[in-house]
Amino acid sequence: MIRGTTKLIAHLGYPTESFKAPMIYNPYFEQHGIDAVVVPMGCKAQDYAAFLKPLFRLSNIHGALVTMPHKVATIALLDEVMTTAKVAGACNAIRLGPDGSLIGDMFDGEGFVRGVLRKGRTLLGARALVVGAGGVGSAIAASLARAGVAELALFDAYTPMAEGLGERLRVHYPRLEVSVGSNDPAGYDIVVNATPLGMKEGDPLPVDVERIAPSAFVGEVVMKQEITPFLAAARARGCAFQIGTDMLFEQIPAYLEFFGFPAATADELRAVSRIAY
Amino acid sequence: MIRGTTKLIAHLGYPTESFKAPMIYNPYFEQHGIDAVVVPMGCKAQDYAAFLKPLFRLSNIHGALVTMPHKVATIALLDEVMTTAKVAGACNAIRLGPDGSLIGDMFDGEGFVRGVLRKGRTLLGARALVVGAGGVGSAIAASLARAGVAELALFDAYTPMAEGLGERLRVHYPRLEVSVGSNDPAGYDIVVNATPLGMKEGDPLPVDVERIAPSAFVGEVVMKQEITPFLAAARARGCAFQIGTDMLFEQIPAYLEFFGFPAATADELRAVSRIAY
Repeated sequence: MIRGTTKLIAHLGYPTESFKAPMIYNPYFEQHGIDAVVVPMGCKAQDYAAFLKPLFRLSNIHGALVTMPHKVATIALLDEVMTTAKVAGACNAIRLGPDGSLIGDMFDGEGFVRGVLRKGRTLLGARALVVGAGGVGSAIAASLARAGVAELALFDAYTPMAEGLGERLRVHYPRLEVSVGSNDPAGYDIVVNATPLGMKEGDPLPVDVERIAPSAFVGEVVMKQEITPFLAAARARGCAFQIGTDMLFEQIPAYLEFFGFPAATADELRAVSRIAY
Repeated sequence: MIRGTTKLIAHLGYPTESFKAPMIYNPYFEQHGIDAVVVPMGCKAQDYAAFLKPLFRLSNIHGALVTMPHKVATIALLDEVMTTAKVAGACNAIRLGPDGSLIGDMFDGEGFVRGVLRKGRTLLGARALVVGAGGVGSAIAASLARAGVAELALFDAYTPMAEGLGERLRVHYPRLEVSVGSNDPAGYDIVVNATPLGMKEGDPLPVDVERIAPSAFVGEVVMKQEITPFLAAARARGCAFQIGTDMLFEQIPAYLEFFGFPAATADELRAVSRIAY
Protein backbone atom coordinates (compact mmCIF):
# COMPACT_ATOMS: atom_id res chain seq x y z
CA MET A 1 0.00 0.00 0.00
CA ILE A 2 1.31 3.41 -1.01
CA ARG A 3 1.70 5.84 1.87
CA GLY A 4 3.55 9.05 2.60
CA THR A 5 6.77 7.22 3.41
CA THR A 6 6.80 5.12 0.23
CA LYS A 7 9.93 5.36 -1.88
CA LEU A 8 9.37 5.96 -5.58
CA ILE A 9 10.98 4.13 -8.42
CA ALA A 10 9.99 5.97 -11.57
CA HIS A 11 9.54 3.77 -14.60
CA LEU A 12 10.48 6.20 -17.37
CA GLY A 13 9.58 5.59 -20.98
CA TYR A 14 7.02 6.25 -23.66
CA PRO A 15 4.54 4.87 -24.41
CA THR A 16 3.81 3.19 -21.09
CA GLU A 17 0.93 0.90 -22.03
CA SER A 18 3.07 -2.21 -22.40
CA PHE A 19 5.17 -1.66 -19.26
CA LYS A 20 5.52 -4.85 -17.24
CA ALA A 21 7.88 -3.84 -14.43
CA PRO A 22 5.14 -2.52 -12.10
CA MET A 23 3.45 -5.93 -12.16
CA ILE A 24 6.72 -7.66 -11.31
CA TYR A 25 8.25 -5.36 -8.69
CA ASN A 26 5.17 -4.11 -6.88
CA PRO A 27 3.81 -7.53 -5.88
CA TYR A 28 7.32 -8.45 -4.72
CA PHE A 29 7.64 -5.24 -2.67
CA GLU A 30 4.21 -5.87 -1.17
CA GLN A 31 4.95 -9.46 -0.29
CA HIS A 32 8.22 -8.54 1.37
CA GLY A 33 7.02 -5.43 3.19
CA ILE A 34 9.33 -3.18 1.18
CA ASP A 35 7.89 0.34 1.29
CA ALA A 36 8.58 1.19 -2.34
CA VAL A 37 6.58 1.37 -5.54
CA VAL A 38 7.35 1.33 -9.24
CA VAL A 39 5.32 4.07 -10.96
CA PRO A 40 5.05 4.28 -14.76
CA MET A 41 5.76 7.78 -16.01
CA GLY A 42 5.14 8.31 -19.69
CA CYS A 43 7.85 10.78 -20.61
CA LYS A 44 8.34 11.68 -24.25
CA ALA A 45 11.85 12.03 -25.67
CA GLN A 46 11.70 15.81 -25.99
CA ASP A 47 10.61 16.24 -22.36
CA TYR A 48 13.05 13.82 -20.76
CA ALA A 49 16.03 16.03 -19.97
CA ALA A 50 13.81 18.70 -18.37
CA PHE A 51 11.99 16.11 -16.27
CA LEU A 52 14.81 13.92 -15.01
CA LYS A 53 16.65 16.44 -12.79
CA PRO A 54 13.61 17.79 -10.90
CA LEU A 55 12.26 14.25 -10.57
CA PHE A 56 15.43 13.28 -8.73
CA ARG A 57 15.08 16.24 -6.40
CA LEU A 58 11.89 14.75 -4.91
CA SER A 59 12.42 13.82 -1.28
CA ASN A 60 10.98 10.32 -1.75
CA ILE A 61 12.56 9.40 -5.07
CA HIS A 62 14.72 6.31 -4.82
CA GLY A 63 15.61 5.49 -8.39
CA ALA A 64 14.37 4.93 -11.89
CA LEU A 65 13.95 2.16 -14.38
CA VAL A 66 14.64 3.52 -17.82
CA THR A 67 13.23 2.14 -21.01
CA MET A 68 12.60 3.23 -24.61
CA PRO A 69 13.18 5.88 -25.85
CA HIS A 70 15.49 7.14 -23.09
CA LYS A 71 18.14 4.46 -22.59
CA VAL A 72 20.78 6.13 -24.77
CA ALA A 73 19.90 9.73 -23.81
CA THR A 74 20.24 8.89 -20.11
CA ILE A 75 24.01 8.37 -20.35
CA ALA A 76 24.65 12.08 -20.93
CA LEU A 77 22.37 13.21 -18.09
CA LEU A 78 24.03 11.37 -15.20
CA ASP A 79 26.90 12.13 -12.88
CA GLU A 80 28.33 8.64 -12.84
CA VAL A 81 27.92 5.87 -15.40
CA MET A 82 29.06 2.31 -14.72
CA THR A 83 31.37 0.63 -17.25
CA THR A 84 28.70 -1.78 -18.47
CA ALA A 85 26.42 1.12 -19.34
CA LYS A 86 29.29 2.97 -21.02
CA VAL A 87 30.08 -0.04 -23.20
CA ALA A 88 26.42 -0.68 -23.92
CA GLY A 89 26.07 3.00 -24.73
CA ALA A 90 22.83 2.98 -22.80
CA CYS A 91 21.51 3.00 -19.30
CA ASN A 92 18.38 1.37 -17.93
CA ALA A 93 18.60 2.08 -14.21
CA ILE A 94 19.34 5.20 -12.19
CA ARG A 95 19.80 5.56 -8.49
CA LEU A 96 20.43 8.52 -6.29
CA GLY A 97 23.87 8.58 -4.71
CA PRO A 98 24.20 9.64 -1.05
CA ASP A 99 25.44 13.06 -2.23
CA GLY A 100 22.48 13.57 -4.55
CA SER A 101 24.41 12.47 -7.63
CA LEU A 102 22.73 10.33 -10.28
CA ILE A 103 24.35 6.95 -10.89
CA GLY A 104 23.43 4.83 -13.88
CA ASP A 105 23.93 1.24 -14.87
CA MET A 106 22.65 -1.18 -17.49
CA PHE A 107 21.16 -4.54 -16.54
CA ASP A 108 19.69 -5.94 -19.75
CA GLY A 109 22.90 -7.87 -20.40
CA GLU A 110 23.38 -8.73 -16.73
CA GLY A 111 20.09 -10.61 -16.87
CA PHE A 112 21.37 -12.59 -19.81
CA VAL A 113 24.67 -13.39 -18.07
CA ARG A 114 23.02 -14.40 -14.80
CA GLY A 115 20.71 -16.73 -16.67
CA VAL A 116 23.60 -18.43 -18.45
CA LEU A 117 25.57 -18.82 -15.23
CA ARG A 118 22.59 -20.17 -13.35
CA LYS A 119 22.18 -22.80 -16.05
CA GLY A 120 25.64 -24.07 -15.13
CA ARG A 121 27.65 -22.58 -17.97
CA THR A 122 31.04 -20.96 -17.52
CA LEU A 123 31.63 -17.59 -19.13
CA LEU A 124 35.16 -16.97 -17.89
CA GLY A 125 37.41 -17.58 -20.89
CA ALA A 126 34.52 -18.52 -23.21
CA ARG A 127 34.15 -17.59 -26.86
CA ALA A 128 30.88 -15.80 -27.61
CA LEU A 129 29.09 -14.62 -30.74
CA VAL A 130 26.50 -11.85 -30.39
CA VAL A 131 24.38 -11.29 -33.48
CA GLY A 132 22.77 -7.85 -33.42
CA ALA A 133 24.60 -4.81 -32.04
CA GLY A 134 21.59 -2.62 -31.23
CA GLY A 135 20.52 -1.78 -27.71
CA VAL A 136 20.07 -5.26 -26.33
CA GLY A 137 23.00 -6.79 -28.25
CA SER A 138 25.32 -4.07 -26.98
CA ALA A 139 24.10 -4.63 -23.43
CA ILE A 140 24.67 -8.39 -23.68
CA ALA A 141 28.12 -7.90 -25.18
CA ALA A 142 29.02 -5.45 -22.41
CA SER A 143 27.93 -7.89 -19.72
CA LEU A 144 29.64 -10.85 -21.36
CA ALA A 145 32.87 -8.81 -21.38
CA ARG A 146 32.37 -7.95 -17.72
CA ALA A 147 31.75 -11.64 -16.97
CA GLY A 148 35.18 -12.48 -18.41
CA VAL A 149 34.66 -14.03 -21.82
CA ALA A 150 37.96 -14.33 -23.71
CA GLU A 151 36.61 -13.65 -27.17
CA LEU A 152 33.64 -11.73 -28.44
CA ALA A 153 32.47 -11.80 -32.06
CA LEU A 154 29.99 -9.14 -33.08
CA PHE A 155 27.74 -9.01 -36.09
CA ASP A 156 25.13 -6.56 -37.22
CA ALA A 157 23.39 -6.22 -40.57
CA TYR A 158 24.52 -2.61 -40.32
CA THR A 159 28.26 -3.12 -39.83
CA PRO A 160 29.07 0.32 -38.30
CA MET A 161 26.83 -0.58 -35.33
CA ALA A 162 28.95 -3.63 -34.60
CA GLU A 163 32.16 -1.67 -35.18
CA GLY A 164 31.13 1.06 -32.73
CA LEU A 165 30.34 -1.53 -30.08
CA GLY A 166 33.63 -3.29 -30.80
CA GLU A 167 35.55 -0.07 -30.24
CA ARG A 168 33.85 0.63 -26.93
CA LEU A 169 34.64 -2.91 -25.82
CA ARG A 170 38.31 -2.54 -26.77
CA VAL A 171 38.59 0.71 -24.80
CA HIS A 172 37.22 -0.77 -21.58
CA TYR A 173 38.42 -4.38 -21.98
CA PRO A 174 41.79 -4.14 -23.71
CA ARG A 175 42.57 -7.83 -23.17
CA LEU A 176 39.33 -9.04 -24.74
CA GLU A 177 39.65 -10.38 -28.27
CA VAL A 178 36.98 -8.59 -30.29
CA SER A 179 36.13 -9.40 -33.90
CA VAL A 180 33.49 -7.82 -36.08
CA GLY A 181 31.75 -8.80 -39.28
CA SER A 182 30.81 -12.48 -39.38
CA ASN A 183 27.74 -14.26 -38.03
CA ASP A 184 29.24 -17.70 -38.52
CA PRO A 185 28.62 -19.48 -35.22
CA ALA A 186 31.14 -22.27 -35.79
CA GLY A 187 33.53 -22.64 -32.88
CA TYR A 188 31.67 -20.46 -30.36
CA ASP A 189 30.65 -21.61 -26.89
CA ILE A 190 27.88 -19.04 -26.61
CA VAL A 191 25.71 -17.92 -29.53
CA VAL A 192 23.19 -15.13 -28.95
CA ASN A 193 20.43 -13.80 -31.11
CA ALA A 194 20.11 -10.15 -30.19
CA THR A 195 18.30 -9.18 -33.38
CA PRO A 196 14.52 -8.88 -33.76
CA LEU A 197 14.55 -11.87 -36.11
CA GLY A 198 11.83 -14.20 -34.86
CA MET A 199 9.35 -11.46 -34.07
CA LYS A 200 7.61 -11.86 -37.41
CA GLU A 201 6.47 -15.03 -39.09
CA GLY A 202 8.76 -15.99 -41.93
CA ASP A 203 11.83 -14.19 -40.53
CA PRO A 204 15.09 -15.90 -41.52
CA LEU A 205 17.11 -17.41 -38.67
CA PRO A 206 19.80 -15.05 -37.35
CA VAL A 207 22.65 -17.55 -37.94
CA ASP A 208 23.21 -20.80 -39.78
CA VAL A 209 22.14 -23.13 -37.01
CA GLU A 210 23.75 -26.14 -38.74
CA ARG A 211 27.12 -24.57 -37.96
CA ILE A 212 26.50 -24.20 -34.20
CA ALA A 213 28.33 -26.81 -32.15
CA PRO A 214 25.82 -29.03 -30.28
CA SER A 215 27.85 -28.30 -27.14
CA ALA A 216 27.26 -24.56 -27.53
CA PHE A 217 24.82 -22.64 -25.39
CA VAL A 218 22.28 -20.61 -27.34
CA GLY A 219 20.57 -17.46 -26.10
CA GLU A 220 17.59 -15.57 -27.44
CA VAL A 221 16.24 -12.07 -26.79
CA VAL A 222 12.96 -12.37 -28.69
CA MET A 223 10.12 -12.83 -26.18
CA LYS A 224 7.25 -13.18 -28.60
CA GLN A 225 7.05 -16.88 -27.81
CA GLU A 226 9.02 -19.08 -25.44
CA ILE A 227 10.51 -21.29 -28.13
CA THR A 228 11.30 -19.12 -31.13
CA PRO A 229 12.17 -20.76 -34.48
CA PHE A 230 15.84 -20.08 -33.67
CA LEU A 231 15.62 -21.83 -30.30
CA ALA A 232 13.63 -24.68 -31.82
CA ALA A 233 16.37 -25.23 -34.40
CA ALA A 234 19.12 -25.01 -31.78
CA ARG A 235 17.28 -27.41 -29.49
CA ALA A 236 16.87 -29.85 -32.39
CA ARG A 237 20.62 -29.65 -32.80
CA GLY A 238 21.09 -30.59 -29.15
CA CYS A 239 22.12 -27.21 -27.80
CA ALA A 240 21.26 -25.99 -24.33
CA PHE A 241 19.51 -22.64 -24.45
CA GLN A 242 17.95 -19.70 -22.67
CA ILE A 243 14.58 -18.17 -23.57
CA GLY A 244 13.96 -14.44 -23.90
CA THR A 245 12.03 -13.89 -20.68
CA ASP A 246 14.79 -15.53 -18.63
CA MET A 247 16.87 -12.46 -19.36
CA LEU A 248 14.01 -10.29 -18.10
CA PHE A 249 13.51 -12.07 -14.80
CA GLU A 250 17.20 -12.74 -14.18
CA GLN A 251 18.00 -9.05 -14.40
CA ILE A 252 15.55 -8.02 -11.70
CA PRO A 253 17.59 -9.34 -8.76
CA ALA A 254 20.43 -7.22 -10.15
CA TYR A 255 18.22 -4.14 -10.12
CA LEU A 256 17.10 -4.90 -6.57
CA GLU A 257 20.74 -5.03 -5.45
CA PHE A 258 21.47 -1.80 -7.32
CA PHE A 259 18.58 -0.09 -5.54
CA GLY A 260 19.64 -1.52 -2.18
CA PHE A 261 16.58 -3.70 -1.65
CA PRO A 262 16.59 -7.25 -0.28
CA ALA A 263 17.54 -9.68 -3.03
CA ALA A 264 15.22 -12.20 -4.60
CA THR A 265 15.80 -14.98 -7.05
CA ALA A 266 14.47 -14.79 -10.58
CA ASP A 267 12.20 -17.75 -9.83
CA GLU A 268 10.70 -16.03 -6.83
CA LEU A 269 10.05 -12.90 -8.86
CA ARG A 270 8.48 -14.92 -11.63
CA ALA A 271 6.21 -16.61 -9.08
CA VAL A 272 4.88 -13.40 -7.52
CA SER A 273 4.69 -11.36 -10.71
CA ARG A 274 1.27 -10.62 -12.15
CA ILE A 275 2.25 -10.90 -15.76
CA ALA A 276 1.84 -13.91 -17.97
CA TYR A 277 3.77 -14.90 -21.08
CA MET B 1 -2.70 -2.76 -9.25
CA ILE B 2 -0.47 -0.30 -11.04
CA ARG B 3 0.14 -1.11 -14.69
CA GLY B 4 1.32 0.69 -17.81
CA THR B 5 -2.11 2.18 -18.44
CA THR B 6 -2.58 3.58 -14.94
CA LYS B 7 -3.32 7.29 -14.69
CA LEU B 8 -1.22 9.22 -12.20
CA ILE B 9 -2.46 11.67 -9.65
CA ALA B 10 0.60 13.27 -8.15
CA HIS B 11 0.30 14.18 -4.49
CA LEU B 12 2.61 17.17 -4.30
CA GLY B 13 3.94 18.48 -1.04
CA TYR B 14 6.79 18.31 1.44
CA PRO B 15 7.35 16.53 3.67
CA THR B 16 5.28 13.55 2.56
CA GLU B 17 5.43 11.33 5.64
CA SER B 18 2.05 12.39 6.99
CA PHE B 19 0.21 12.24 3.65
CA LYS B 20 -3.12 10.47 3.98
CA ALA B 21 -4.67 10.85 0.52
CA PRO B 22 -3.01 7.71 -0.94
CA MET B 23 -4.66 5.58 1.73
CA ILE B 24 -8.06 7.11 0.97
CA TYR B 25 -8.09 7.31 -2.82
CA ASN B 26 -6.14 4.21 -3.76
CA PRO B 27 -8.37 1.70 -1.94
CA TYR B 28 -11.37 3.45 -3.49
CA PHE B 29 -9.86 3.27 -6.99
CA GLU B 30 -9.01 -0.38 -6.45
CA GLN B 31 -12.47 -1.27 -5.20
CA HIS B 32 -14.13 0.48 -8.13
CA GLY B 33 -11.79 -0.74 -10.84
CA ILE B 34 -10.59 2.79 -11.58
CA ASP B 35 -7.17 2.54 -13.24
CA ALA B 36 -5.59 5.46 -11.39
CA VAL B 37 -3.21 5.88 -8.49
CA VAL B 38 -2.31 8.67 -6.08
CA VAL B 39 1.48 8.87 -5.76
CA PRO B 40 3.16 10.99 -3.07
CA MET B 41 5.88 13.18 -4.52
CA GLY B 42 7.95 15.04 -1.98
CA CYS B 43 8.68 18.28 -3.77
CA LYS B 44 10.42 21.08 -1.88
CA ALA B 45 9.28 24.68 -2.34
CA GLN B 46 12.35 25.74 -4.32
CA ASP B 47 11.96 22.84 -6.77
CA TYR B 48 8.23 23.10 -7.36
CA ALA B 49 8.01 25.46 -10.33
CA ALA B 50 10.66 23.50 -12.26
CA PHE B 51 8.91 20.19 -11.56
CA LEU B 52 5.28 21.03 -12.18
CA LYS B 53 5.38 21.74 -15.92
CA PRO B 54 7.38 18.68 -16.99
CA LEU B 55 5.30 16.53 -14.62
CA PHE B 56 2.18 17.59 -16.51
CA ARG B 57 3.78 16.68 -19.80
CA LEU B 58 3.85 12.99 -18.84
CA SER B 59 1.54 10.98 -21.07
CA ASN B 60 -0.16 9.28 -18.13
CA ILE B 61 -0.53 12.22 -15.76
CA HIS B 62 -4.12 12.92 -14.88
CA GLY B 63 -3.96 15.52 -12.17
CA ALA B 64 -2.44 16.52 -8.87
CA LEU B 65 -3.41 16.98 -5.28
CA VAL B 66 -1.49 19.91 -3.88
CA THR B 67 -0.62 20.38 -0.27
CA MET B 68 1.83 22.33 1.88
CA PRO B 69 3.96 24.23 0.99
CA HIS B 70 2.68 24.63 -2.58
CA LYS B 71 -0.97 25.67 -2.29
CA VAL B 72 -0.32 29.40 -2.69
CA ALA B 73 2.51 29.09 -5.20
CA THR B 74 0.37 26.91 -7.48
CA ILE B 75 -1.98 29.79 -8.34
CA ALA B 76 0.69 31.57 -10.38
CA LEU B 77 1.74 28.42 -12.26
CA LEU B 78 -1.60 27.51 -13.83
CA ASP B 79 -3.42 28.50 -16.98
CA GLU B 80 -6.86 28.66 -15.43
CA VAL B 81 -7.82 29.16 -11.78
CA MET B 82 -11.38 28.71 -10.56
CA THR B 83 -12.98 31.53 -8.56
CA THR B 84 -12.92 29.61 -5.28
CA ALA B 85 -9.17 29.15 -5.60
CA LYS B 86 -8.72 32.82 -6.52
CA VAL B 87 -10.62 33.94 -3.43
CA ALA B 88 -8.84 31.42 -1.23
CA GLY B 89 -5.56 32.59 -2.72
CA ALA B 90 -4.53 28.97 -2.94
CA CYS B 91 -5.08 25.87 -4.98
CA ASN B 92 -5.12 22.25 -3.86
CA ALA B 93 -6.05 20.39 -7.04
CA ILE B 94 -4.82 20.55 -10.60
CA ARG B 95 -6.14 18.77 -13.63
CA LEU B 96 -5.03 18.70 -17.22
CA GLY B 97 -7.43 20.40 -19.62
CA PRO B 98 -8.12 18.73 -22.98
CA ASP B 99 -5.79 21.27 -24.64
CA GLY B 100 -2.95 20.54 -22.22
CA SER B 101 -3.72 23.56 -20.04
CA LEU B 102 -3.47 23.31 -16.25
CA ILE B 103 -6.68 24.03 -14.38
CA GLY B 104 -6.70 24.58 -10.64
CA ASP B 105 -9.33 24.63 -7.96
CA MET B 106 -9.53 24.59 -4.18
CA PHE B 107 -11.60 22.02 -2.31
CA ASP B 108 -10.69 22.46 1.36
CA GLY B 109 -13.65 24.78 1.82
CA GLU B 110 -15.90 22.75 -0.46
CA GLY B 111 -15.50 19.83 1.94
CA PHE B 112 -16.59 22.03 4.79
CA VAL B 113 -19.62 23.30 2.86
CA ARG B 114 -20.70 19.84 1.71
CA GLY B 115 -20.51 18.61 5.27
CA VAL B 116 -22.71 21.42 6.55
CA LEU B 117 -25.28 20.91 3.78
CA ARG B 118 -25.37 17.19 4.29
CA LYS B 119 -26.13 17.76 7.96
CA GLY B 120 -29.30 19.52 6.83
CA ARG B 121 -28.23 23.13 7.27
CA THR B 122 -29.01 25.87 4.75
CA LEU B 123 -26.19 28.15 3.68
CA LEU B 124 -28.09 30.27 1.18
CA GLY B 125 -28.69 33.59 2.91
CA ALA B 126 -26.96 32.52 6.13
CA ARG B 127 -24.71 34.66 8.33
CA ALA B 128 -21.31 33.09 8.95
CA LEU B 129 -18.28 33.89 11.08
CA VAL B 130 -14.92 32.42 10.09
CA VAL B 131 -12.22 32.78 12.71
CA GLY B 132 -8.76 32.40 11.17
CA ALA B 133 -7.98 33.77 7.71
CA GLY B 134 -5.00 31.59 6.86
CA GLY B 135 -5.08 28.88 4.21
CA VAL B 136 -7.97 26.82 5.50
CA GLY B 137 -9.99 29.78 6.75
CA SER B 138 -9.67 31.51 3.39
CA ALA B 139 -10.74 28.33 1.62
CA ILE B 140 -13.79 27.94 3.87
CA ALA B 141 -14.75 31.59 3.42
CA ALA B 142 -14.40 31.25 -0.37
CA SER B 143 -16.63 28.18 -0.43
CA LEU B 144 -19.21 29.72 1.93
CA ALA B 145 -19.41 32.68 -0.44
CA ARG B 146 -19.84 30.38 -3.42
CA ALA B 147 -22.55 28.50 -1.49
CA GLY B 148 -24.52 31.73 -1.17
CA VAL B 149 -24.16 32.97 2.40
CA ALA B 150 -25.47 36.53 2.76
CA GLU B 151 -22.95 37.74 5.31
CA LEU B 152 -19.44 36.73 6.10
CA ALA B 153 -17.52 37.98 9.15
CA LEU B 154 -13.79 37.38 9.15
CA PHE B 155 -11.37 37.48 12.02
CA ASP B 156 -7.68 36.81 12.27
CA ALA B 157 -5.25 37.56 15.07
CA TYR B 158 -3.23 39.19 12.31
CA THR B 159 -5.83 41.62 10.94
CA PRO B 160 -4.24 42.24 7.49
CA MET B 161 -4.81 38.54 6.70
CA ALA B 162 -8.54 38.92 7.28
CA GLU B 163 -8.58 42.21 5.38
CA GLY B 164 -6.87 40.69 2.35
CA LEU B 165 -9.36 37.86 2.29
CA GLY B 166 -12.21 40.31 2.71
CA GLU B 167 -11.04 42.27 -0.32
CA ARG B 168 -10.80 39.20 -2.50
CA LEU B 169 -14.31 38.22 -1.44
CA ARG B 170 -15.69 41.68 -2.29
CA VAL B 171 -14.10 41.55 -5.75
CA HIS B 172 -15.65 38.20 -6.66
CA TYR B 173 -18.88 38.41 -4.64
CA PRO B 174 -19.93 42.09 -4.74
CA ARG B 175 -23.33 41.40 -3.16
CA LEU B 176 -21.88 39.54 -0.18
CA GLU B 177 -21.77 41.54 3.05
CA VAL B 178 -18.22 41.19 4.36
CA SER B 179 -17.03 42.46 7.73
CA VAL B 180 -13.59 42.17 9.27
CA GLY B 181 -12.21 42.47 12.76
CA SER B 182 -14.44 40.86 15.37
CA ASN B 183 -14.60 37.27 16.56
CA ASP B 184 -17.83 37.81 18.48
CA PRO B 185 -20.05 34.90 17.41
CA ALA B 186 -23.31 36.43 18.60
CA GLY B 187 -25.97 36.43 15.90
CA TYR B 188 -24.24 34.09 13.43
CA ASP B 189 -25.82 30.96 12.00
CA ILE B 190 -22.47 29.35 11.22
CA VAL B 191 -19.38 29.73 13.40
CA VAL B 192 -16.13 28.19 12.21
CA ASN B 193 -12.82 27.72 13.93
CA ALA B 194 -10.22 27.87 11.17
CA THR B 195 -7.34 28.63 13.52
CA PRO B 196 -4.93 26.05 14.94
CA LEU B 197 -6.33 26.69 18.41
CA GLY B 198 -7.09 23.29 19.89
CA MET B 199 -3.94 21.64 18.54
CA LYS B 200 -2.07 22.17 21.80
CA GLU B 201 -3.22 21.47 25.31
CA GLY B 202 -4.17 24.66 27.11
CA ASP B 203 -4.97 26.64 23.94
CA PRO B 204 -7.67 29.25 24.53
CA LEU B 205 -10.97 28.73 22.69
CA PRO B 206 -11.13 30.60 19.36
CA VAL B 207 -14.32 32.47 20.28
CA ASP B 208 -16.42 33.15 23.36
CA VAL B 209 -18.62 30.06 23.16
CA GLU B 210 -21.12 31.52 25.62
CA ARG B 211 -22.06 34.04 22.94
CA ILE B 212 -22.83 31.44 20.27
CA ALA B 213 -26.56 30.95 19.74
CA PRO B 214 -27.55 27.36 20.61
CA SER B 215 -29.26 27.24 17.20
CA ALA B 216 -25.97 28.01 15.44
CA PHE B 217 -23.98 25.37 13.60
CA VAL B 218 -20.35 25.12 14.68
CA GLY B 219 -17.51 23.90 12.49
CA GLU B 220 -13.97 22.92 13.37
CA VAL B 221 -10.83 22.40 11.27
CA VAL B 222 -8.57 20.95 13.97
CA MET B 223 -8.31 17.17 13.45
CA LYS B 224 -6.13 16.31 16.41
CA GLN B 225 -9.10 14.73 18.14
CA GLU B 226 -12.71 14.27 17.07
CA ILE B 227 -14.18 16.45 19.82
CA THR B 228 -11.86 19.37 20.38
CA PRO B 229 -12.35 21.62 23.44
CA PHE B 230 -14.11 24.12 21.16
CA LEU B 231 -16.56 21.48 19.89
CA ALA B 232 -17.07 20.12 23.39
CA ALA B 233 -18.04 23.60 24.61
CA ALA B 234 -20.32 24.20 21.61
CA ARG B 235 -21.97 20.82 22.09
CA ALA B 236 -22.53 21.58 25.77
CA ARG B 237 -24.27 24.73 24.61
CA GLY B 238 -26.57 22.69 22.40
CA CYS B 239 -25.06 23.58 19.04
CA ALA B 240 -24.98 21.17 16.14
CA PHE B 241 -21.43 20.78 14.83
CA GLN B 242 -19.03 19.30 12.33
CA ILE B 243 -15.72 17.66 13.24
CA GLY B 244 -12.45 18.34 11.45
CA THR B 245 -12.18 15.10 9.50
CA ASP B 246 -15.68 15.56 8.04
CA MET B 247 -14.21 18.36 5.97
CA LEU B 248 -11.50 16.01 4.80
CA PHE B 249 -13.78 13.20 3.69
CA GLU B 250 -16.52 15.47 2.32
CA GLN B 251 -14.07 17.16 -0.02
CA ILE B 252 -12.95 13.96 -1.69
CA PRO B 253 -16.14 13.44 -3.74
CA ALA B 254 -15.57 16.97 -5.04
CA TYR B 255 -12.05 16.03 -6.10
CA LEU B 256 -13.30 12.89 -7.79
CA GLU B 257 -15.78 14.96 -9.83
CA PHE B 258 -13.05 17.47 -10.67
CA PHE B 259 -10.84 14.64 -11.94
CA GLY B 260 -13.72 13.07 -13.87
CA PHE B 261 -13.88 9.86 -11.84
CA PRO B 262 -17.07 8.13 -10.70
CA ALA B 263 -18.44 9.88 -7.64
CA ALA B 264 -18.52 8.41 -4.16
CA THR B 265 -20.04 9.59 -0.94
CA ALA B 266 -17.91 10.73 1.95
CA ASP B 267 -19.20 7.79 3.99
CA GLU B 268 -18.17 5.31 1.34
CA LEU B 269 -14.71 6.84 1.15
CA ARG B 270 -14.39 6.75 4.91
CA ALA B 271 -15.37 3.09 4.92
CA VAL B 272 -12.78 1.96 2.34
CA SER B 273 -9.97 4.26 3.49
CA ARG B 274 -7.04 2.71 5.31
CA ILE B 275 -6.48 5.54 7.73
CA ALA B 276 -7.71 5.79 11.27
CA TYR B 277 -8.39 8.87 13.38
